[in-house]
Amino acid sequence: MTNPTTAILQTDGTSIGPSFAALLERIRRLNDVGKAAGLMGWDRDVNMPAAASADRAQQMATLAQIGHELLVDERVGDWLGEADLEAQRWGAAVDAVETVAEVADEMTSPAIVADLTDRTTVAALLREFRRQRDDAIKLPGEFVARRARLSGAAYRAWVDARAASDWPAFQPHLQHTVDLAREQAGLYGYTTEPYDALLDRYERGMTSAAVERLFDAATAALLPLREAIVREGRPVSAAVLHQPYSVEQQQAFARHIAPLVGYDFGRGHLGTTVHPFASSFSQSDCRITTRWNPAFISPSLFGTLHECGHAIYEQHTSPVLARTPLARGTSSGIHESQSRMIENIVGRSRGFWRAHFGALQSHFPSQLANTTADEFWRAVNHVGPSFIRVEADELTYNLHIVLRFGLERALIGGTLAVADARDAWNAATEDVLDMTPPDDAHGILQDVHWSSSMFGYFPTYALGNLYAAQLYEAATAADPAVAEGLNDGNVLPLLAWLHTNVHRYGKVYPPAELIVRATGHPLDEGAFVRYADAKFGDVYGLG
Amino acid sequence: MTNPTTAILQTDGTSIGPSFAALLERIRRLNDVGKAAGLMGWDRDVNMPAAASADRAQQMATLAQIGHELLVDERVGDWLGEADLEAQRWGAAVDAVETVAEVADEMTSPAIVADLTDRTTVAALLREFRRQRDDAIKLPGEFVARRARLSGAAYRAWVDARAASDWPAFQPHLQHTVDLAREQAGLYGYTTEPYDALLDRYERGMTSAAVERLFDAATAALLPLREAIVREGRPVSAAVLHQPYSVEQQQAFARHIAPLVGYDFGRGHLGTTVHPFASSFSQSDCRITTRWNPAFISPSLFGTLHECGHAIYEQHTSPVLARTPLARGTSSGIHESQSRMIENIVGRSRGFWRAHFGALQSHFPSQLANTTADEFWRAVNHVGPSFIRVEADELTYNLHIVLRFGLERALIGGTLAVADARDAWNAATEDVLDMTPPDDAHGILQDVHWSSSMFGYFPTYALGNLYAAQLYEAATAADPAVAEGLNDGNVLPLLAWLHTNVHRYGKVYPPAELIVRATGHPLDEGAFVRYADAKFGDVYGLG
Repeated sequence: MTNPTTAILQTDGTSIGPSFAALLERIRRLNDVGKAAGLMGWDRDVNMPAAASADRAQQMATLAQIGHELLVDERVGDWLGEADLEAQRWGAAVDAVETVAEVADEMTSPAIVADLTDRTTVAALLREFRRQRDDAIKLPGEFVARRARLSGAAYRAWVDARAASDWPAFQPHLQHTVDLAREQAGLYGYTTEPYDALLDRYERGMTSAAVERLFDAATAALLPLREAIVREGRPVSAAVLHQPYSVEQQQAFARHIAPLVGYDFGRGHLGTTVHPFASSFSQSDCRITTRWNPAFISPSLFGTLHECGHAIYEQHTSPVLARTPLARGTSSGIHESQSRMIENIVGRSRGFWRAHFGALQSHFPSQLANTTADEFWRAVNHVGPSFIRVEADELTYNLHIVLRFGLERALIGGTLAVADARDAWNAATEDVLDMTPPDDAHGILQDVHWSSSMFGYFPTYALGNLYAAQLYEAATAADPAVAEGLNDGNVLPLLAWLHTNVHRYGKVYPPAELIVRATGHPLDEGAFVRYADAKFGDVYGLG
Repeated sequence: MTNPTTAILQTDGTSIGPSFAALLERIRRLNDVGKAAGLMGWDRDVNMPAAASADRAQQMATLAQIGHELLVDERVGDWLGEADLEAQRWGAAVDAVETVAEVADEMTSPAIVADLTDRTTVAALLREFRRQRDDAIKLPGEFVARRARLSGAAYRAWVDARAASDWPAFQPHLQHTVDLAREQAGLYGYTTEPYDALLDRYERGMTSAAVERLFDAATAALLPLREAIVREGRPVSAAVLHQPYSVEQQQAFARHIAPLVGYDFGRGHLGTTVHPFASSFSQSDCRITTRWNPAFISPSLFGTLHECGHAIYEQHTSPVLARTPLARGTSSGIHESQSRMIENIVGRSRGFWRAHFGALQSHFPSQLANTTADEFWRAVNHVGPSFIRVEADELTYNLHIVLRFGLERALIGGTLAVADARDAWNAATEDVLDMTPPDDAHGILQDVHWSSSMFGYFPTYALGNLYAAQLYEAATAADPAVAEGLNDGNVLPLLAWLHTNVHRYGKVYPPAELIVRATGHPLDEGAFVRYADAKFGDVYGLG
């Protein structure tokens, strides 16, 4: 059921009021400037000659400055205040029209609304834009410039320190980025602990205490599963993945498989970068990048599927949200749930490889001649020890995140000194993963995030896994065709459910509201634990 | 000899005065916004999925609007006025310092100044920026919007009309674009005839009367040469160029040959488009595109060399001009001289193919097994009848331009009615090329320019050939190593002379001044006629 009045954001907004119209015009201009800057960043990583780095940084800084001025402009504050009042008056007027249809929808299913109503989108737009502007105002120009300078230096120091496995060289820079993050948390403001303020920028409404509860509960279930695999599991080998795989054929297979998981090349583009990412410049231009390892097929295979998941989300936000801050994923965690859904729940499923292993074999006949679909499926689900997060299996990956969350929360909270961070890292690795890093490059220096002062981001990776499993469980409960489809490698029923219940809403609903609407209850670890128990029990032939 | 004070444009400008400083800041911001828009255009043609066309057009329109507002801002007018006075006061103060060195330079060689002086660059910057702003102010927003709408419609009508060879379908649209161009000429203003105002936007200071004199003189010499080739020339075949050539190998050869003519891939990028172009986003990021015809090697071969010439120019503008409107080629004609220099004077020379034919053969062993370097050189210089400008040989190409110049000048001047344009085209083709177009797709409908209201651009193509020959003659006169180098396929001496006498100045000197400085006299047709007589006499064994 489509509400005929849901295109208000595609008008000039004057039917709501003059201030709303002025605001909408400014929001669109800001969107376009932001997309131009985004394209410059994409191009820098995909096409640009390295010699142009400084020039491009300058150009992007200019666009950022223009965007900042357009955002903090005092008139925008006036328009926002007026637009709130205009939207309230207008909302009361349309109530009479919409109430009947809405109530009918809500009765049918509290989890699946028929479509976005105008009042919902207008309210969400005002909420998100106000938040964006408030955040921009909270950080003084002096702080933003100092952060750019210090974290730029920290990033460069980290690159060298990781290469040399030299923790003492990085330690003073980590002190800078921790101090910056603590200062930033203070500028944003928080109720309970500073880490909450940082986490909230990536996962609106999530708190450190809630993450702790979720991670504790998940760890309590996943550690015994991992031990059971090691103790009782049948042998699983990942050797088949580590062979010479021609880059050209890897690219051909990536182009073959991406549309089969729902990625629309007609509104996309596949590029090559060292660090894969997805990036969108409009709903009709959502791009992915992949890296190609000539001796290991997993990075391109699962990297492509992962970025497809991100891009599919953005390709399917509702067109009525175009050119507003609502036309994107609602949070880092929900975004990650979509990439993990395609990478792991779909791409590492038995049904997927039963359906597609033949095509993979035809791309790599000699490498895969003596492997069966089921053997390949087990290989891509091999669970083993790993010092490096990005090389970890689906199960162990979450433990890497648990470790980082504990450490960075303590660093930001002031209960762990930077001077003690390396020892704390190694102790936590021993504690959670039962191993000691051989050196700091395989330990505290492995990730880029802390050098860029990106504290608060790590938890969203594991939250993404939990969200993905909970969404998948709800989808299978709502429609038997979802699981039946995946058994045959057909993702269309799953995608249809995700389009309806997640993708089209963009940033209209904050993550906590979205997950309740889509699954009927708040996020918990239960679905992921059930999913992991079933899947790895299957892979490893457990009890 | 480097003048130690030549980096004034890389300071914040406060040493000249507060208004100059404010202006410089604005100029840089405008540069960055323009480069962002340029990248969006490049990306649209190279990477973007077609489905995103409307979104991208919207984003580019927003950047254009932001740029327009930054340019016409009244404060900018005030700054310009003040900055002129500040620059005069500052210039008088630095005179004492610079006079001795300058006079010494001018005495040494009137054609080659030691380097840019600050006063020269500052004066040029104020001149060019004022011109850019005046032009923006002269065109009312209503006119710009109407032009975009009508020429957009004309372009789409032209695409269909050309495909159907349907002149009557295009005729009313041509009326619109001619009317727009006449109106635009009136808005810009002119002394003698409206066409001058349009030509002046592409070739500063050039007049219709001057172009007519040059073209008449060139035609008087080139027509007899062409007749002599037909009457007395030995047989030359271009058949070897028309064979199956693998696109992959064409790309490999393009990557091989581009650096050998001076293109720096470390500050460049080679992409694929239907219509090749060069595009720069900073001096460190000057890109080219090429098209690949699997049955004909010339488009990729000479298209790559042509775009290399454009990009080499921009790669070698002086770094002191960065982020200003001076950091680009000074005019369309001079720009075209650089592309024609590399494409024709270098890339179609006997020495070039003696040096590089072996490498081409190794890329295409079966296609070129029975061809010698000299045969290949003659093939790429084959002169023959051609209805289509972009397929014409180096000699005939100019006659195509002479034809278009006469027609569009008459259309804009009002002495030729649009209703009579097709008949005039066919009569002129008969007159100049001694042929009658078989249909309008091979006649008046072949070029995109008129559908986009780009009147005044065509002459710069032929002017480019004349400039190129005159520059080449001056280079060989100044340094014997230039011609000796080319005899062995070595372009370095030629490039060195071009870097010193053309490239580094960017837009500091208008074309008429640049050509006098570089060659000692104003542009005439003599050098091109001498070059063509010698070269084609050689290719065809004349006299």
